[in-house]
Parts: sequence; C-alpha cells; structure tokens
Amino acid sequence: MSKMMKCFVMHGIGKVGVVDKPIPRPGPGDAIIRTTAALICTSDTHTVAGAIGDRQGLTLGHEAVGVIHELGSLAAESGLFKVGQRVAVNAITPCYACDNCQRGYPSQCGGALGGWKFANLKDGSMAEFFHVNNAVANLAPIPDGLTDEQAAYCCDMLSTGFVGAEHANIPIGGSVAVFAQGPVGLMATVGARLLGAGLVIGVESMPQRVALAKKYGCDVVVDYSKEDPVESIMKLTGGKGVDSSIEALGSARTFAACVNATRPGGTISNIGYHGDGDTVPIPRLGWGVGMSDKTIRTALCPGGSERMGRLLRLIEKGRVDPLAMTTHRFGFKDIERAFKMMQTKEDGMIKPLISFT
Amino acid sequence: MSKMMKCFVMHGIGKVGVVDKPIPRPGPGDAIIRTTAALICTSDTHTVAGAIGDRQGLTLGHEAVGVIHELGSLAAESGLFKVGQRVAVNAITPCYACDNCQRGYPSQCGGALGGWKFANLKDGSMAEFFHVNNAVANLAPIPDGLTDEQAAYCCDMLSTGFVGAEHANIPIGGSVAVFAQGPVGLMATVGARLLGAGLVIGVESMPQRVALAKKYGCDVVVDYSKEDPVESIMKLTGGKGVDSSIEALGSARTFAACVNATRPGGTISNIGYHGDGDTVPIPRLGWGVGMSDKTIRTALCPGGSERMGRLLRLIEKGRVDPLAMTTHRFGFKDIERAFKMMQTKEDGMIKPLISFT
Amino acid sequence: MSKMMKCFVMHGIGKVGVVDKPIPRPGPGDAIIRTTAALICTSDTHTVAGAIGDRQGLTLGHEAVGVIHELGSLAAESGLFKVGQRVAVNAITPCYACDNCQRGYPSQCGGALGGWKFANLKDGSMAEFFHVNNAVANLAPIPDGLTDEQAAYCCDMLSTGFVGAEHANIPIGGSVAVFAQGPVGLMATVGARLLGAGLVIGVESMPQRVALAKKYGCDVVVDYSKEDPVESIMKLTGGKGVDSSIEALGSARTFAACVNATRPGGTISNIGYHGDGDTVPIPRLGWGVGMSDKTIRTALCPGGSERMGRLLRLIEKGRVDPLAMTTHRFGFKDIERAFKMMQTKEDGMIKPLISFT
Amino acid sequence: MSKMMKCFVMHGIGKVGVVDKPIPRPGPGDAIIRTTAALICTSDTHTVAGAIGDRQGLTLGHEAVGVIHELGSLAAESGLFKVGQRVAVNAITPCYACDNCQRGYPSQCGGALGGWKFANLKDGSMAEFFHVNNAVANLAPIPDGLTDEQAAYCCDMLSTGFVGAEHANIPIGGSVAVFAQGPVGLMATVGARLLGAGLVIGVESMPQRVALAKKYGCDVVVDYSKEDPVESIMKLTGGKGVDSSIEALGSARTFAACVNATRPGGTISNIGYHGDGDTVPIPRLGWGVGMSDKTIRTALCPGGSERMGRLLRLIEKGRVDPLAMTTHRFGFKDIERAFKMMQTKEDGMIKPLISFT
Repeated sequence: MSKMMKCFVMHGIGKVGVVDKPIPRPGPGDAIIRTTAALICTSDTHTVAGAIGDRQGLTLGHEAVGVIHELGSLAAESGLFKVGQRVAVNAITPCYACDNCQRGYPSQCGGALGGWKFANLKDGSMAEFFHVNNAVANLAPIPDGLTDEQAAYCCDMLSTGFVGAEHANIPIGGSVAVFAQGPVGLMATVGARLLGAGLVIGVESMPQRVALAKKYGCDVVVDYSKEDPVESIMKLTGGKGVDSSIEALGSARTFAACVNATRPGGTISNIGYHGDGDTVPIPRLGWGVGMSDKTIRTALCPGGSERMGRLLRLIEKGRVDPLAMTTHRFGFKDIERAFKMMQTKEDGMIKPLISFT
Repeated sequence: MSKMMKCFVMHGIGKVGVVDKPIPRPGPGDAIIRTTAALICTSDTHTVAGAIGDRQGLTLGHEAVGVIHELGSLAAESGLFKVGQRVAVNAITPCYACDNCQRGYPSQCGGALGGWKFANLKDGSMAEFFHVNNAVANLAPIPDGLTDEQAAYCCDMLSTGFVGAEHANIPIGGSVAVFAQGPVGLMATVGARLLGAGLVIGVESMPQRVALAKKYGCDVVVDYSKEDPVESIMKLTGGKGVDSSIEALGSARTFAACVNATRPGGTISNIGYHGDGDTVPIPRLGWGVGMSDKTIRTALCPGGSERMGRLLRLIEKGRVDPLAMTTHRFGFKDIERAFKMMQTKEDGMIKPLISFT
Repeated sequence: MSKMMKCFVMHGIGKVGVVDKPIPRPGPGDAIIRTTAALICTSDTHTVAGAIGDRQGLTLGHEAVGVIHELGSLAAESGLFKVGQRVAVNAITPCYACDNCQRGYPSQCGGALGGWKFANLKDGSMAEFFHVNNAVANLAPIPDGLTDEQAAYCCDMLSTGFVGAEHANIPIGGSVAVFAQGPVGLMATVGARLLGAGLVIGVESMPQRVALAKKYGCDVVVDYSKEDPVESIMKLTGGKGVDSSIEALGSARTFAACVNATRPGGTISNIGYHGDGDTVPIPRLGWGVGMSDKTIRTALCPGGSERMGRLLRLIEKGRVDPLAMTTHRFGFKDIERAFKMMQTKEDGMIKPLISFT
Repeated sequence: MSKMMKCFVMHGIGKVGVVDKPIPRPGPGDAIIRTTAALICTSDTHTVAGAIGDRQGLTLGHEAVGVIHELGSLAAESGLFKVGQRVAVNAITPCYACDNCQRGYPSQCGGALGGWKFANLKDGSMAEFFHVNNAVANLAPIPDGLTDEQAAYCCDMLSTGFVGAEHANIPIGGSVAVFAQGPVGLMATVGARLLGAGLVIGVESMPQRVALAKKYGCDVVVDYSKEDPVESIMKLTGGKGVDSSIEALGSARTFAACVNATRPGGTISNIGYHGDGDTVPIPRLGWGVGMSDKTIRTALCPGGSERMGRLLRLIEKGRVDPLAMTTHRFGFKDIERAFKMMQTKEDGMIKPLISFT
C-alpha cells in the first residue's frame, strides 16, 4: 500500500483545498522530492480562476525545493545525486531530448509552453512530496551556503525575471524600462542591473513595490497612475526612448507602452503572461509601421540544472537578495489562508513563503 | 544660372507630373548622380496616395543608379570615386555618424525610419539627376560585368527582400514561409534560399507571381484564396509550423498568419510596410500568451556601399537574376504612364524598369 | 546465448581486422541498429594510426545508417519509433542532459569532445549492428525519398562541413575561403553557398578535388602548390581579405593562412582536427596583435535528430548531392581492402561507401 | 601666424620631450579640443620603446578630455556642439563611413587597427590642444555631474576593459577569469561584474593590484607567482574551467592559460596587446584539437560618441568609480617625470592623471 501525503489542489474553478494522495513513485529517469520550502505564484491564482481550464484535482504549485526522497534507476546510476540531498527544481522541467529542446527552446518542450509540467500537465509541487521528470537535467544541488528558502526563489522568480533582462539586448550602460514591479518585475530590475544597464526605469504605483524597486536597482520609478509612462520615459531619455523595455505584467496596455517607449533598434522583452483578449495589439506608429528595427521577444521561465546552478550562485555570492521580497511566511498547514491572501494581494502581499518543516 | 533637369514629382495627394528643377549641387561630403536606370516602387504609389502626407512638389523615386556627375570637396578628396563612374545608391542613405547609425541601425538614422531620405525628407531619384548625402558611405561602384538595369534592383528590392531572410534566423535546412510574392516577397524567397532554407513555402494567389515564386525558389506555393495558409503550412510541416516566417505585404491579417504559422522558438521577420489602422494585432494564443519564445523582428531596407557591394556581387556571380521580375520597360519620357500602371498593377505589372538613356 | 555479429575493429596501433562480437542489447533509453550503409572517415585512419591511443578491440566507424533492430523500454514508450524503421544516426550522440548539453554544446557532452562516443568511448558503427544511446534524441527517421546511401552522408560529412560555414558568420554576398577540399571541405563549400556567400574561394591542389570543388560551388580554386594562397586570396578580394575562412584540414600552416587571409572583423572557423604538435600558432601580425576584431571558432560535428532532419531535408529537396563525392563502393566483406585504400588515398579515393546488404 | 602650444612628443625610440607646435586647425568635419585632463597609458611607453616603429616628433597620448576650442564648418552646422562645451574623445576615432566601419568594426577603420589614429597615424592628445576627426561621431558631451578627471577614464580604460567582458559571452551567473589586473584588467573585472558574472577570478600577484581587484569585484584573486593559475581555476570551478576568460596582458603564456582554463563551449576574450614574437600559440590539447567549441575573440578599444555616452553614464550613476585606480596626479608641466615613472611603474603606479588647468 502506498504511503499518503497532503497536497494543495484545485477542486474546480475557484475552489481549492488540501487532500491526501499517494506519494508518487519515480520512473527510471525520475526523482521524488520531499518538499521543504515553496512559494505561491500569482499564476497559481490565475489557474484557479480558470485561466487554463478546469483542472479538477490537480495539485497546484511550481516553486518548490526539498530533499531527494527516491531516485529512479537511471537517475541513481548517473551517480550525480543521492537520497537525502537538498535540491532545487525549476518550475519548468523539460525532457531535453525532443525537437524543441534540441533547438535550444526547452521551455517549449514537446510543443508551445510544454516544458511547464507542474500544475499544468501533471501534479504540481505544493505538496509534501513531488515528482520530477528527467532528474539528471532538472535537479540542481543547493549549495551549503544557501537556505532552502533562498533557493526557492530560483525556481521561477529569478529565472523568469532575469530572462526578461537577458532577452532585452541591453547595451552596457544602456537604458531599460521595466513595466510593473511585482515579484517578477523586481527580479527583471535586478537582472537589468546585473546585465549592465546604466539607467533602469521602473513603472509602478504601489508604494511598497516602489520602495522595493528602488532597493533592487531602479534609478527612478515612474508612477503610471500619476503620469503617462511613455512621456515620462521619453523625458528621462532625452526624447530618444529606452534601449530596451521589459513587460512584466501581461497587459495589452503595458505591452503597447513598451513598444512606444523603446527607441528604434531597441528590444521589447515580454515575460508577462497575457491572459485576456484575442489579440495583443502592437501600436502601428510606435512600431515604425513595421520598419523601425524594433524586436519583440518572449520567454517562459528557463529551467534546467545548469542554469539553476548559476542562479543559486548569484544568491550565494551576494549579487541578489531575494528574501527581501518575502512579505509573508506560513507553514504548509496554513496554505489555504496564504493562498486566499495571494488571490486578493491583501496586506501588501508580494511573495509568501511556505515552510514544510 | 543653374542648369535645369526633368523630375517626376508629386503635385499633391493623388496627383503627379513631370516638372523642371535646377540640377542640385553637392555639399562637401555629397555627390550628384546623373540617372541612367530606375525602378518604380509600390511605396511610391502609397506616397502619392497620401501615406506620408501631402509632399507637394517632392520628386518621387528611391531606386536609381547612374553616373557620378559632380562630387563635393570631401567626397572628391577621399580618392574613392571619380566623375563619370557608374554607381548604385541604396534607397536608404544614412549619415553613418549619428547615435542610431553608431548603434548599428543606420536605417533609423537620426530617428525612426530617418535613413529614408529620398522622396521623404528630400527630393527622390526619379529625375535626370539626383543628390546623394554622405557619398563615401553611400556610393557603390557598379562592377563592369553588370548592367545599370541589373544594379538598380539592389537599391531596394534585393536589400529589403534579403534582410527579411537575414532577420528570420533560419536554421540550415529549416522551413520558411514567405507571405506575399510581390517583388519584395520574391526577393525574400531568394534570400531564404541563399541563406540555407530547406523548405520555402510561398503564400500567393496571382498566377504570374506564383510562377515567379517557383522560379525564384519556393518549394511550394500556397494559394491563400483557396486554402487557409496557416492550416496548409501546418500540414506541410507535420503540424509543427515553420522555423521562420517573413511578412512581405504589410497587412494585419498576414502578420497574424505569420505569428500563427511559426513554431515556438521561431522568428517572424516583418518587412511589409503597415499602412493602415492604429494597431497591428498579435494573435494572443498563437503567440503562446507571450511566452512561446517567438521573436518578431522588423527592418527597413539596409543601405550603405559595403552592403551594396555584396548585393551587386550576388548578381554578378549568378546567384540571383533580378531581371526575371521585370515585367515592363519604359523610357523616362513615359514615366507618367508607367506610374499609372503601377498604381493599378494592370497588365500583371510586377516591376517596371525606367531607362534614362 | 547472445547472437553474434561481424565487426571491423582496431587490434592495436596500425592493425585492423574483422572479428565476431555479440550483438549489443539496449538500456532503457537506447536502441540497437542493424547497419545498412556506412562510410569510412579519414579520422578512422587517424585512430588506427594511434591519434587517440591504443584502442585495442574497439570497433571502428561513426558514419552509419540502418534499421531499428531493438528498442529499450523508454525509447519504445516514446512512441516515436518502431522496430524495422530506417534511421540515420549522427557520429556524435550526446546525452542531451548534462551541463554542457544544456549550455548548448552537446558535442562537448560530459566534457571536451565527449559527444563523440562511437569508436572513441564505445564500439563504433562499422559492424553489422550498433548501439545508440539516448535514442529519442539521436535517431533520425530517413525520409522515404532518400536512399540509405544518401542519408549516410549526414552523419558526419554534411554536419561537420556545414557547421564550418554556420560558424563562419558569412555576411550575405560575402567572401569565404575554404582551405582544403577533402570530403569535409567540399561540404563546407556547399555550406558556404547554402548560407549566402557571394564569393567562395577553395584552396586545393589535387585535380579530382579541384573539379569537385567547382562542381560543389567554389567560384575559384587556388592551387596552394603553385601559388601562395594568402596572396592569391588578397588579390581576389581587392587586398581586403575574405570575410570568413574555414579550416577543413587540421594543419598549423593552413590555420595560419586562414588567420592571415581573413579581414579585420572576420571569422576563422576551424573544423579541421589538429593532430600534431603542442601548439597551433596564431600569426601575431595577421591577428592584428590580438586587436583586429578577428574571431576564431571551433566545432565538433553537431549531432541530434532535429539537425539530422534538416540535413536529410536538404538532400531530399535537391539542395546538395553528396553522392557526387562517392569515389568508391564496397560490400562490408571487403572492408579491410577499402580501409587500406583510405589509409593511402590511392586511386584518388575521396569517400568510400560500404554496403551491408 | 598660428598660435603655438606645448606638446609631449616622442623624439625617437626611447626619447621623449616637450616641444612647441602650432595649434591645429579643423577640416570641415573636425574639431579642435583644448585639453583639460589626460591619462598616460602603458601603450604610450610601448610606443616610445619602439613597438610601432620610430615615430619621430609625433605627439603622444590618446586618453584626454577637454573643451571645444574650434569646430569645422560641417561640425558646427550639425548644431550638436558649441565652442566651450566639455567633451570626451575616445582613444579610437573612426571615420564611420568606410567599409569596415559600415560592417560594424569601426576600430578597424580603413584597415586593421586603423581607428587608432592618436599617436599612431597623427599627433596624439598629450598636448594643450588636439585635433579630432569626424567630430559628430567622436565628440561625447560630458554630463554636468562628472568631472573631467572621471570622464578621462572612458577614453580607453573603461571602453577597452568593458569590451573584454562584452566579448566574453558570460552567461548570467557564469564564471570568468580575468588575467592581469592592471588598469585595463581592473576595468575588465568591473565589466564582468556589470555583465552578470557570478564568479570573477582575478589573476594577479602585485599586492596593490590584488587589493584593487577585490575592491572592483573579483570574488577571488589567484597569485600566479605562487600557484599555477589554470590548476587553481580548475579547483575553483569544480574541474570544469570558467565559462569565459579575459586576456588583459598581451602575453603568449597568459593567452595559453586562458585557453586551458576555459571550459568547452566557452570564450577567450583577448584585449591584451601582443607585442612580441612571430606567433601567439594556442595550446593544442587545451583547445580540444580545434573541436571544443571554444571561441577566441579580439578587440581594440571601441570608440564613438554613442558608446562614450553610455560609459559616462555608468560613472555618473555610480556603477563604477574609476578614480579609485588613480595612484598619482601631476600637472602637465611635470609630464616628463610622470612618463618616466610610468615606464618603470615605480612607486606602485597604476594610472597617473595629468591635469592641464
């Protein structure tokens, strides 16, 4: 008889709860992790609101770290890991073998967004144990100098925020606008600073986020509720526009502002999830009637143990302190309360950390 | 007293005619060219229709080659050219000194689309003589083995069509869809072949263009008037979509089809001039909700003598035969009749060549 | 009791022969291929000469295609393949899971050159059957329109030759020098043409190879036994040097010529195996004292089913005819004789094809 | 009669002195700058030692800033500048019009290293006034918040050091070794940190430089006089080698160590001037016999007002404090004494600042 574990699941659109499920078993290349720390993501609340359909009974969560509980035969034979070892697992767990993985787009594993398996194609990680496919490529050892809580921020927040900056083609000393300073936008701000931006302009109106934006490296924050952000960015750049802009919200209006605020030859890097409408319109004139050498890029949180190793190192070496955006902490027993607060963002919640120990 | 020349001008929206103007004189870095061969571009007809406003009295034309008539002092001192030499001049004539030129975006010289000076910021080249700024960077000697007629195709058609392919990030042996097989689309097809595409899918319905598309390298041509091009492209690529697509029309509908027909991680390369509407909508789902690693690039005909030299060489070495798309020939005295036919594309006109000799 | 098969092995430095070995069995992710066609590579003769040490008893060969004989459990479960299917397997068979594979360098799987497993880290493919690791990523279905003989050329010749051109950063219409027109150099010539070169200069002296070089796309071939190739290249490029050069021999002298023949800002793309000496010297002045913006790249035959699919398509669509360099054909029973001829390159041998049927 | 100015010149190999020359006059596109602050570069001492031949009477110096004294007619007409304005001028002053400039390699203007005009092709800037060609592209206004002394560091130190890091293709959080921590190496260290390195390893033995290396961002400094730097780097990277290495010395031995210390797929970025020997040898095995996917890049200090603007901004925004490496200060009247100290590097001299006011 399988041993059982507690899981935080979606019961249907708008409904969540904790249920018991059997602890999963690994296939030959897989691993089972005992969870120690996890984060709730705004995208979990979108999923529960129905963004990807009714996923009845699916365990939620994709930002979790823990300890190796069981290894499949091939994963064990690799000699890379041992049971009991602390590991971080990215939100995206590609197979690293299919066409799209070979092409260099592992987040699109098997098809568009197909690397996103947790709480989408299989049970997520907001549970006492979770299953990891392709363990050799997806388990990243946590360095001794880091806590599990710190490591959990690499699963999605650092990886997604940073890729926003990596895709933005920022020239050294160049100017960047980061639209929205939620947890992903804040990490995009850090990414822009890490990648050599000389002027980082945040766009945000909530005071707590504005304060964090400045702490994380914005040279200036434009309050879009009080001023037109494109006009303000133009003023701040001598009428030229920014070299690069990062869309970290997923709104058509913000996306259009990115296109308009970016100078000819510049790059608009989208990391926001666009959840509404049939189309995301490009402003025709701001786009230079399709001839202004502007580039629009997109990304889904890049995974893999090699990248995770680099992200963990950046925390270890003091290049970024992700815990500064932890506004709340809960035990897993309080997961339902934590999730409800995340749905409403009450009490200025930015990122709630869930402890399993 | 200045000598006079005949020029083909815009008299106002919808009105054109031939007038006399003084032969222009060069500034220190400039040159004056006596025209020998020119092409009418569809964008000239857009200009006359009012696309960039009422440019009363402006000489039209931006695709012309000829013979050096006069050199400014600095251009002469460079020792690179001599009066009487045959030269081709790209439609785009950047300064190569401003910020955007230094950044590597000379087509955006001084501002969005600012490298486009002919028939936009100054008199165009559909005249007996025309003025070229920054001669050292913008005059490209025509090799002995090429006729002026052949060279004229480098000014815009080859440069724009090819950059569509260069920006498309085509993997060797990869698949490319080229939407619309007008003269620019045909040259994008050639460009895709030159850059190693293994499968080139044209999208076109006019029989004469379909025939040319096949001649220029399409492996298959999809008739969008009879079948849904995205569905057909999906079938032709085993349900994956193409690695790259090129928009060579400038239509919102075609642009959306490009996004939908391109696989995750692929590139949509826009070279069409989008003349209508406030926005050019991206289909949200085909774009992978902004997370599918699809890239959208744009370009305006890259200029400069160095690139022109490479384009001329491709004709010289037999890699491309642009004259195959010359459907009509006229003397400059018949320019008004030629232009009217280009406005209506009557008689299957694709590209009319204008001779000045 | 295992069934037995014939294998062509290295008995020690300088010694080869055919022996019986058991037909291998697959691990969960692996496959066993029954060989139908193979090629002998010059690097096999280097191995036998002792280049990588005494590999006593190791089966030789890394260019082979065939029919799936047996699939491991995971490979079978993938649903991608079935026993009896025709497949091509690249010379390089990466795991696609380790750090270097994730970084985008699968040829360096697990360490420098570690993707090269056949006849290096395990038995090669010059045998009646051979073993393929990570089948999902490494088995490429052969299209119906292609023969096994054609497909065999994708395993190494096309992949290595083409990557020489892909790494060479050739501008469209640019100039390329390909040093040595052996089978890999010939395919580098094809690659340079496929990627848009406007002037391809081959460097070769053997008449049969010169003839093939012209057939495959060289605009001109420089005979280094009669003229200094760097001087000739300078003349052919108006004193500027080529945009890109490809080293397809693996000689210090040729490498130095590549550096000297390439213009500032250009790229030297090395695909030759450098087998001798402690160092490969860069000519200091030709390198611009380390400041001329010249780039030196290197590569080992890129593998993977996705790339193989694109290479197979290029043959299928008529972009390249690799059989034109097949100078000799043998049955597997004559492998020893064929190998001896390859050692001496007697009878103008360029590439010998081995049939197993 | 021309007004005269004091200039610090090379009298012949090994000989320097101050002489009077007429204040230069600008051509149409040029400018004359009245010097306010300058730096002596080690390469000036190489020049005097004969590295580029006997440049009798040539004014030395290429790192200087000042005030616009006179503008040529075209430079004045541009409306971008006015007499009296504070400007910085990069050591490299390309024409931005020739082939190599158009190709994106302005440091190779007109030919290898041809962008380097000061104290090479014309009088340098260690004089009371100096001449600047192509003023529109080469004069960078100094922001109000910066002193002339700060700005002087952009002319060569920041631009060269940073391009070492820009060319190194550092993955975010990746590892970088910077060989030699002289002024250029120190700025390469800053560049590596600015571009997201997670582990920066300096290689240096002089205590004052080691201290500065740590201040500027090295996580660890390896003393090559006490340990083998390649072995130490291997230990620090778990046996893998660094993702990227930067050669900032110009020594064959250091270059070889870079190749050996860099992992497969990594990049060796050379910014050292290699002044000795016929060749710079690549270690054959460390290079993976030419097949390890390692890339070797080179650069010469990138110039241009657009880049200078970004470098000045990085100082203005506090991203780098170049004055921390100013070990000595002199008035221009003491230039001979300062230069002699730079020749011997006595008193721990790293970078001496020369004031003209």
